[in-house]
This record gives sequence, C-alpha cells and structure tokens, in this order.
Amino acid sequence: MDTTQIVGIVAGILTASSLLPQVIKTYREKKADEVSIVMLLVLMAGVALWIVYGFLRDDMPIIVTNCFSLAVNLTMIGLRLKYGHKK
Amino acid sequence: MDTTQIVGIVAGILTASSLLPQVIKTYREKKADEVSIVMLLVLMAGVALWIVYGFLRDDMPIIVTNCFSLAVNLTMIGLRLKYGHKK
Repeated sequence: MDTTQIVGIVAGILTASSLLPQVIKTYREKKADEVSIVMLLVLMAGVALWIVYGFLRDDMPIIVTNCFSLAVNLTMIGLRLKYGHKK
Repeated sequence: MDTTQIVGIVAGILTASSLLPQVIKTYREKKADEVSIVMLLVLMAGVALWIVYGFLRDDMPIIVTNCFSLAVNLTMIGLRLKYGHKK
C-alpha cells in the first residue's frame, strides 16, 4: 500500500466517523435543539448518493465507509427527533 | 457526462455543503453548546487529509470540494468557540 492510499483510507475513516462524537454527546446530555436537522438531512442525502455512486462504480471502500456514515447519521437523526423540541 | 459522474458530483456537493445549515442556524441563534467540538475537529482533520489526497492524486474536484468543506468547517469551529461555553 503506498502513501497516497494510506492518506485516502485515514481521510475516509475520519470523515466517516466524524458524527460519532456528536451522537455520544447528544446521547449523554439528552439535548439537541442546537443541532441543525437540515444539516443531518442534507448529509443523509449526500451519503446515500455516495452509496449509489459506489455501486455504480463497483467501489467497495466507498460503499462500506458510506454505509457506516449512513448508520451513524440515521442514529443522530433519531436522537435529534427525540431530544430536540424546536424544528 | 454519464449518470455515474452526475451522481458523484451531486453527492459531493451535498456532503461538502452539509455543514452550511448548521453554520446558519448557530449564527442566528448564537448558541452552540450542544454542537460537538470533537465532531468538528475530527471532520477538520479528515477534510484536510482529503485535500492532501487530492494533491497526491492530482484530483482537482477532490481538492476544490474539500477546500470548500474546510472553509465551512473552520467557520463553524469559530462559531462554536464564540457561542459555546462548555467544552
């Protein structure tokens, strides 16, 4: 594996898992009014399209990392709906 | 341009701009304690590495979209530091 591939993989892991700290924080504090639901929905649409793109190009790393992102994203949308009272 | 490319470009625009609604919301409400600073820092590291990856592969779309993401991300980090009082 060359440097470029390693940089790409680390970059992918970081961006795919970036929403995890938000999930943990919201789960602990049980408050989410200040988190933008529009951000979560735009991200969901983008990540879902990346999965489609991965299937169209038969690119397994893109499919796998974005399926992980989608799962974290959907969890955060659930927490936002549960703990957020404002739109 | 074929379907695959269009799906990829739309996916890239959506994920790159997903943090914008959060910036707008936080700027308006002037509250950010519930937004995870760790999320923003992990995302910053990931996006910065995507830019390095773009340069290593001479991939202009990756460089451009991630520079945009980084600018939005740094703006949000600034708002988080200004309007968030908890760590």
